[in-house]
Amino acid sequence: MIIVMQAGAPEEELQQVLRRVEQLGYHPHLIRGTQRNVVGAVGDERGKARLQSLEALPGVESVVRILQPFKLASREFRPKTVVKIGEVEIGSDRLVVMAGPCSVESEGQILECAHAVKAAGATILRGGAFKPRTSPYSFQGLGEQGLKMLALARETTGLKIVTEVLNPQDVELVARYADILQVGARNMQNFALLNAVGEVRKPVLLKRGMSATIQDLLMSAEYILSHENYDVILCERGIRTFETATRFTLDLNAVPVLQKLTHLPVIADPSHGTGHWEYVTAMARAAIAAGADGLMVEVHPKPEEALSDGVQSLTPARFQELMRQLDPIARALGRTL
Amino acid sequence: MIIVMQAGAPEEELQQVLRRVEQLGYHPHLIRGTQRNVVGAVGDERGKARLQSLEALPGVESVVRILQPFKLASREFRPKTVVKIGEVEIGSDRLVVMAGPCSVESEGQILECAHAVKAAGATILRGGAFKPRTSPYSFQGLGEQGLKMLALARETTGLKIVTEVLNPQDVELVARYADILQVGARNMQNFALLNAVGEVRKPVLLKRGMSATIQDLLMSAEYILSHENYDVILCERGIRTFETATRFTLDLNAVPVLQKLTHLPVIADPSHGTGHWEYVTAMARAAIAAGADGLMVEVHPKPEEALSDGVQSLTPARFQELMRQLDPIARALGRTL
Amino acid sequence: MIIVMQAGAPEEELQQVLRRVEQLGYHPHLIRGTQRNVVGAVGDERGKARLQSLEALPGVESVVRILQPFKLASREFRPKTVVKIGEVEIGSDRLVVMAGPCSVESEGQILECAHAVKAAGATILRGGAFKPRTSPYSFQGLGEQGLKMLALARETTGLKIVTEVLNPQDVELVARYADILQVGARNMQNFALLNAVGEVRKPVLLKRGMSATIQDLLMSAEYILSHENYDVILCERGIRTFETATRFTLDLNAVPVLQKLTHLPVIADPSHGTGHWEYVTAMARAAIAAGADGLMVEVHPKPEEALSDGVQSLTPARFQELMRQLDPIARALGRTL
Amino acid sequence: MIIVMQAGAPEEELQQVLRRVEQLGYHPHLIRGTQRNVVGAVGDERGKARLQSLEALPGVESVVRILQPFKLASREFRPKTVVKIGEVEIGSDRLVVMAGPCSVESEGQILECAHAVKAAGATILRGGAFKPRTSPYSFQGLGEQGLKMLALARETTGLKIVTEVLNPQDVELVARYADILQVGARNMQNFALLNAVGEVRKPVLLKRGMSATIQDLLMSAEYILSHENYDVILCERGIRTFETATRFTLDLNAVPVLQKLTHLPVIADPSHGTGHWEYVTAMARAAIAAGADGLMVEVHPKPEEALSDGVQSLTPARFQELMRQLDPIARALGRTL
Repeated sequence: MIIVMQAGAPEEELQQVLRRVEQLGYHPHLIRGTQRNVVGAVGDERGKARLQSLEALPGVESVVRILQPFKLASREFRPKTVVKIGEVEIGSDRLVVMAGPCSVESEGQILECAHAVKAAGATILRGGAFKPRTSPYSFQGLGEQGLKMLALARETTGLKIVTEVLNPQDVELVARYADILQVGARNMQNFALLNAVGEVRKPVLLKRGMSATIQDLLMSAEYILSHENYDVILCERGIRTFETATRFTLDLNAVPVLQKLTHLPVIADPSHGTGHWEYVTAMARAAIAAGADGLMVEVHPKPEEALSDGVQSLTPARFQELMRQLDPIARALGRTL
Repeated sequence: MIIVMQAGAPEEELQQVLRRVEQLGYHPHLIRGTQRNVVGAVGDERGKARLQSLEALPGVESVVRILQPFKLASREFRPKTVVKIGEVEIGSDRLVVMAGPCSVESEGQILECAHAVKAAGATILRGGAFKPRTSPYSFQGLGEQGLKMLALARETTGLKIVTEVLNPQDVELVARYADILQVGARNMQNFALLNAVGEVRKPVLLKRGMSATIQDLLMSAEYILSHENYDVILCERGIRTFETATRFTLDLNAVPVLQKLTHLPVIADPSHGTGHWEYVTAMARAAIAAGADGLMVEVHPKPEEALSDGVQSLTPARFQELMRQLDPIARALGRTL
Repeated sequence: MIIVMQAGAPEEELQQVLRRVEQLGYHPHLIRGTQRNVVGAVGDERGKARLQSLEALPGVESVVRILQPFKLASREFRPKTVVKIGEVEIGSDRLVVMAGPCSVESEGQILECAHAVKAAGATILRGGAFKPRTSPYSFQGLGEQGLKMLALARETTGLKIVTEVLNPQDVELVARYADILQVGARNMQNFALLNAVGEVRKPVLLKRGMSATIQDLLMSAEYILSHENYDVILCERGIRTFETATRFTLDLNAVPVLQKLTHLPVIADPSHGTGHWEYVTAMARAAIAAGADGLMVEVHPKPEEALSDGVQSLTPARFQELMRQLDPIARALGRTL
Repeated sequence: MIIVMQAGAPEEELQQVLRRVEQLGYHPHLIRGTQRNVVGAVGDERGKARLQSLEALPGVESVVRILQPFKLASREFRPKTVVKIGEVEIGSDRLVVMAGPCSVESEGQILECAHAVKAAGATILRGGAFKPRTSPYSFQGLGEQGLKMLALARETTGLKIVTEVLNPQDVELVARYADILQVGARNMQNFALLNAVGEVRKPVLLKRGMSATIQDLLMSAEYILSHENYDVILCERGIRTFETATRFTLDLNAVPVLQKLTHLPVIADPSHGTGHWEYVTAMARAAIAAGADGLMVEVHPKPEEALSDGVQSLTPARFQELMRQLDPIARALGRTL
């Protein structure tokens, strides 16, 4: 931490800061500047939030953090994580594509979807059984019945299953069926849920909150990792900005930034990120070109009849075309689909 | 809903839209324009999310919502809600001030705080026992022990108690101690939690998520109201914007907008909204002048030693000064403190 | 500046940074940390942008600025500025209200407006003769003819005149008629225009750009001040955020932040800030309560027929009511209207 | 336009709206709904801003625009524009890369840069002679001397030249030297400048403002097009969001959105968009994969000594590597470099 003193702060206030830094277990290091004095606090500042509170001391202008606040999620902790689910790898040279409907609506629908996305080259089936819906009057998902349909689709097609869990109490139930537990954007800082999925020995797909900084995302991953569940997959899915031409702003800049900061695999969700099927293919290509380890894409046999998110769903034919376009881009990056 | 057709969309696609609108239970109404055709879908569109999916039909350019998607939270449902907790009213002419530390840290600390904020004129004590912390390494609150300390402070001072609940499983426990259950900004769209607090017969303080639109906030309130718990208090606490001079951007515009749209009381939290104690008093005055029904303010006897949020906490002396400044502004609006 | 080295950066890279800091005319000060080394560069860093470029050196993780980059706009340069235009003062205990139509549309309209706002207590008349319009097909203002109408309104009512200038070439012309030159939000970083208004001996009203940080705003003020034109009035008028219930998000937090950082007077424009007349009065009250030195408000005799911005204009009757409500709030803050 | 009436608005207010719509030259079309009445106003609403002002009428809840407000920039006006500068085409299958330093600093620097970027495959040289700098104390560019150095570099290498113009008065001067006139992000709504570059018969590179919606960008292009200068190139260069890990948020979603809405070519600037050289190559790949017609990239022989923007500049060697990586991605999209 760097503690910046106010211009003209009296010596006494400076001395109080130096004493306080020492009391908190750091070694203070004073730089007398031409305009302001600055105190460096040497010592590992992670896990010790209290230095920040020095901003409340008289004479202090600001406290500037130097170190990133995450440890286990950091590339200094580990160079690279590859999450393995049977033969499927996330974070290796082979890109992973997770596809399927927003919600599991019926056995017929999920099976039709599963066959279609498998034929096009996806290896993981997505589908919501517990749905976080903005409106209490919207379809909330089929619950355990939906999980059973997903399991049936897995049996039939060999695809792995990723599905969302909303409530810490449901983690065990969902983990019985799913290969990957999804924590949705709206729950990215639901710390009770993060703790619960940390305790399960299943990979977790953690979606970036729509107003979460990249650092916030890594701190939420840190929660899961701190329970010794190291199989965390990060997912960029769009942030809230002033632009309304797209539903969210898919922030692909997060891909190279995350790859610099963390060892965890990073995928992108252009369906939620843009909110319109017309933009999904272009942004899927861009995500792979930016270096993402894979994609999550919404596919529905009849988007105009979907119980949720029809506007952003691809038909199976359009999804097949997307996969066809991804192939040469993957190869351009030395990767395979 | 208004369905806008693409320029030059063939008659056949238009007819398909008209048929589909009827199938979904609406009465279609066609306006042939000079550039584009437009279809009005007459019927109550709330609770029927599927019209939006028509955007996936060929020839459709966009689907524009006309009605607000909330019912019970709307001022058309009810003109005004006053939440009553014993003699304390929220939403009446008497303003309510909730004050206290970010976290309950010890019996001594919470009692000292309670006496101080009561002396200054607050009627509700805030204090976190379960803390949502960005870092898993930060102080997470004292849990039930903290709730007991809050209850002791209530006994001693007569103040009512508001405290946060993070996990649907803890709702019953927290409700045993608290007078008001707080749902924090990071859980505003934790629908499992919203359902759980809807089932309890205790008032709920619902904080706006940092990337939630005003409509999102009202939809989350709608979740609670739909369980027939009508005692919901809304709280503006700052949104995420590009500005970094303040920790969040306290959006006081939300106060008059909410008062136009909903019957629920609205308070503001300038401590979280600005993130710096120096700006709290000015923004507290502004919130009351904008028409807020009250405030939530962080007060700590020794901000520079606080286990959390010291930077944004007022000392008891500064809080007393804030209350002194609020008084004439309240009176200017025909209200009392 | 603080230069943070990467963890594990070799000694050689550190030495290169130390040398480079010295070459640039600063005194380097090394702090060896447990995780990272940090170099403080002592010396006045304002006006020397090049330290930031050290981030491009190998081994450097980031360069953190310590000092604010503005000098003349800073409260360290001067405690307080009061702009005087005849008997009207901006920045003193007496609040200033600038009111009038978005555009000057006709002699009749501007005279009617001028009389109405004067009667209600405004001392400065606003009205656009050169209009920055998003669309090239919208009304662009009456130009010099409009300026003449403003001058006539001044003669008739004694109100001072504030009007916008868009083009450096027009500065001289506008300055012949106006008492205050307005630089609009979209031109806040039009540096050619800032230089031009800096050269004129007339007060300048500088509106915050819709995506400008508070620091950006002060840097734009610094441009004007650096030409020795010290009569700059800052105006918060709403920033772009994700919220769409209001046209912009009036950021009243900027008021206390600016008052901490600068000596320049600060006013607020709730008409542009919210974009809806229904919210203008509440936010005008809030702005004054937050400590603003005054307001800019749009008033039009027939808002529904206005050539621009009708939605956000108050009728004269509503403006009168606004002024009536402001009075006790001004007094609550020890100020007068 | 769709005019939505308030629930319960009396018949008289509805009739007033119908009359007013007719007075403004539209054909009103009433839809009586179950909750609200809605009036469609049939007629070309572009260029007639005044319908929006109906929101100020009693009984009106909101006025919803149906048509996009731009005409000449629309794909309905023209399917595709290819800007030609000698043999260089922008908007064709051959991608265009504009590269060079932020600022022209000296003859040696610009020539070294020009040779380097040409060798790597760029066809257009960028370099600022008039620099828009946030601080009045920063290097402001070499002015006409810089333009002459650019012209010399063109002579020597055969590269075309793009350079920024800040002041309407300088348009003629800059047009004498440059092949493409750049309007920077901070001037995107400097309408005096847009009008001035519209009058010159030179292509214009129009950068998206950092808080401009995609619609705003197209409206600014419309200004230039309305002067019958149809050679406008749009450039996404990053928007302001809450994320601070990158300097701006390069919004690649704008690429497919713009390609749906307009015939104008679209390029991306990952240097300004991210603000850090480490992220430039990944985002350049992503931009091309998203479908951009080209790139603008900052290259400097010694980034750590650059007078501006060193942090985001690539060295010539890194730029060469970027071009090497782009090649297979261009081919994957059926394009060439």
